[in-house]
Amino acid sequence: VATQKNNFIAVDWGTSSFRAALLAPDGEILGELATQRGITTFNKGEFAPYLIATCADLAKGGVGFYLMSGMIGSRNGLLEVPYCPCPASATEIAGAVGWVVPNKIAIVPGLRNGFDDVMRGEESQVLGAAAVLGLTDALMVLPGTHSKWVSLENGAITGFDTFMTGEFYALLKEHSILAKSLTEPEIWNPEAFIQGIETAMLGESLLRTAFSLRVKSLFNQLEASAASSYLSGLVIGEELAAMQIEDGMELLVIGGQTLCERYNLALTHLGARARTLGNQAAWAGLLAIYQRLKL
Amino acid sequence: VATQKNNFIAVDWGTSSFRAALLAPDGEILGELATQRGITTFNKGEFAPYLIATCADLAKGGVGFYLMSGMIGSRNGLLEVPYCPCPASATEIAGAVGWVVPNKIAIVPGLRNGFDDVMRGEESQVLGAAAVLGLTDALMVLPGTHSKWVSLENGAITGFDTFMTGEFYALLKEHSILAKSLTEPEIWNPEAFIQGIETAMLGESLLRTAFSLRVKSLFNQLEASAASSYLSGLVIGEELAAMQIEDGMELLVIGGQTLCERYNLALTHLGARARTLGNQAAWAGLLAIYQRLKL
Repeated sequence: VATQKNNFIAVDWGTSSFRAALLAPDGEILGELATQRGITTFNKGEFAPYLIATCADLAKGGVGFYLMSGMIGSRNGLLEVPYCPCPASATEIAGAVGWVVPNKIAIVPGLRNGFDDVMRGEESQVLGAAAVLGLTDALMVLPGTHSKWVSLENGAITGFDTFMTGEFYALLKEHSILAKSLTEPEIWNPEAFIQGIETAMLGESLLRTAFSLRVKSLFNQLEASAASSYLSGLVIGEELAAMQIEDGMELLVIGGQTLCERYNLALTHLGARARTLGNQAAWAGLLAIYQRLKL
Repeated sequence: VATQKNNFIAVDWGTSSFRAALLAPDGEILGELATQRGITTFNKGEFAPYLIATCADLAKGGVGFYLMSGMIGSRNGLLEVPYCPCPASATEIAGAVGWVVPNKIAIVPGLRNGFDDVMRGEESQVLGAAAVLGLTDALMVLPGTHSKWVSLENGAITGFDTFMTGEFYALLKEHSILAKSLTEPEIWNPEAFIQGIETAMLGESLLRTAFSLRVKSLFNQLEASAASSYLSGLVIGEELAAMQIEDGMELLVIGGQTLCERYNLALTHLGARARTLGNQAAWAGLLAIYQRLKL
């Protein structure tokens, strides 16, 4: 019973999804659930009732605490929690949580890099990855709609950069003139992807390299089914070129399987040494923050 | 009557507009008209009837010849005219026109830069600008949905590069997360534009600088009404950074008034010496090609 009392529910609540886990004080995952109810699908007053109702089964044994991260702490979430400045370790982040219900429901702050960049949710994944892999110093990339490149030094997040890579990919694929060259069926083509990476690594602007897809298509140099792979290589390669990926560089990729595989392929092609880790790193991060809360 | 017989109708028929002019053999513009009927608004069989009907008034004195340029010569136009390779002067281009009706209706070929880039219509504007200003060597930029940077050497177009600048601007403004920061009313703000140019000139990727708009907006560092000016600076600046614009560089900007003013402002800010010229340069270009046709 004493153990159950110290279990808590960790929540990763972003723009487009809701994930929760029941964690034991030692980090053991006792149960998990996920829904598609991202924060954009709610009105203000609906967040807390949804949280309690959705986690009712997880909380059955009697759970006293909820710790959440992600866009739930933004202006459009349950409670706006001011960004915590870098450098920030789990201790600083724990000291800056926002309290929805004192000692019951807390939200992890996002981080700001000076006033030049922001993130919400990735900080928990980064701290979790550091805990899981025993890292105190690392360069990590969290690919996605808005990719984050995060520097960890002495266990603290010292800085990060955002790239709108996934969003540009979707915009170009769905709404631009390139859509004409991207006809169905779309088949994953690693050679076309690497060709996109290499075109991007020439260091020209994406404004220019993106048009190369159209030109290749006009001159029948690119199969329509491979065009999305080439485009994926162009945008990911643009990000890697900007981050000046070099031979021998070591880094960690955190994210879903498909994106991790693509980044790993590109990074390996460029001579970097990449490890990958899944999104469940968030639970270990929330645990690390929980352990530093003054409850 | 002899003079009238040698008059001809020049047409610039693009994706989104139709423009025609009655030209005397010496280049005098005897009449002009424009409509919004770009090539995407037609089925195949409708192009020629529309051309004749729309130009009926211009052709009243008895006109024997039509010379057209632009996307009308593309796969989706009246007749697909193969791209003419660079380097190409008015003579090469005249030798490669496509004949819709022999000795009556011709379409100027677009150009290709190796198999790496293509354009249709801009070649006529570039040759026209060269004729109007008496240039044989120049670097010209034609800003727009797809900006073209064109090198003219010894009166021939030797190469060019396309940037999807205007299209990226529209995509980001209308379909991306940045739309949230771009609320009405939109007010032209030269300071915000120059701030965007300077951010872009740092040489970081647009994938990254675009997110700076969101961050500035979150921290109230950018008025919503000025955000579109800042975004315009980011994309145009990205193009200028890729073209390595330097102090003292001389170039010619050809296009509509608003874009010419923005490019001129940015180029002047970077120390380049820019001249501007309107889109009517196309007529002088079509005249130069007409004069080299073997009729």
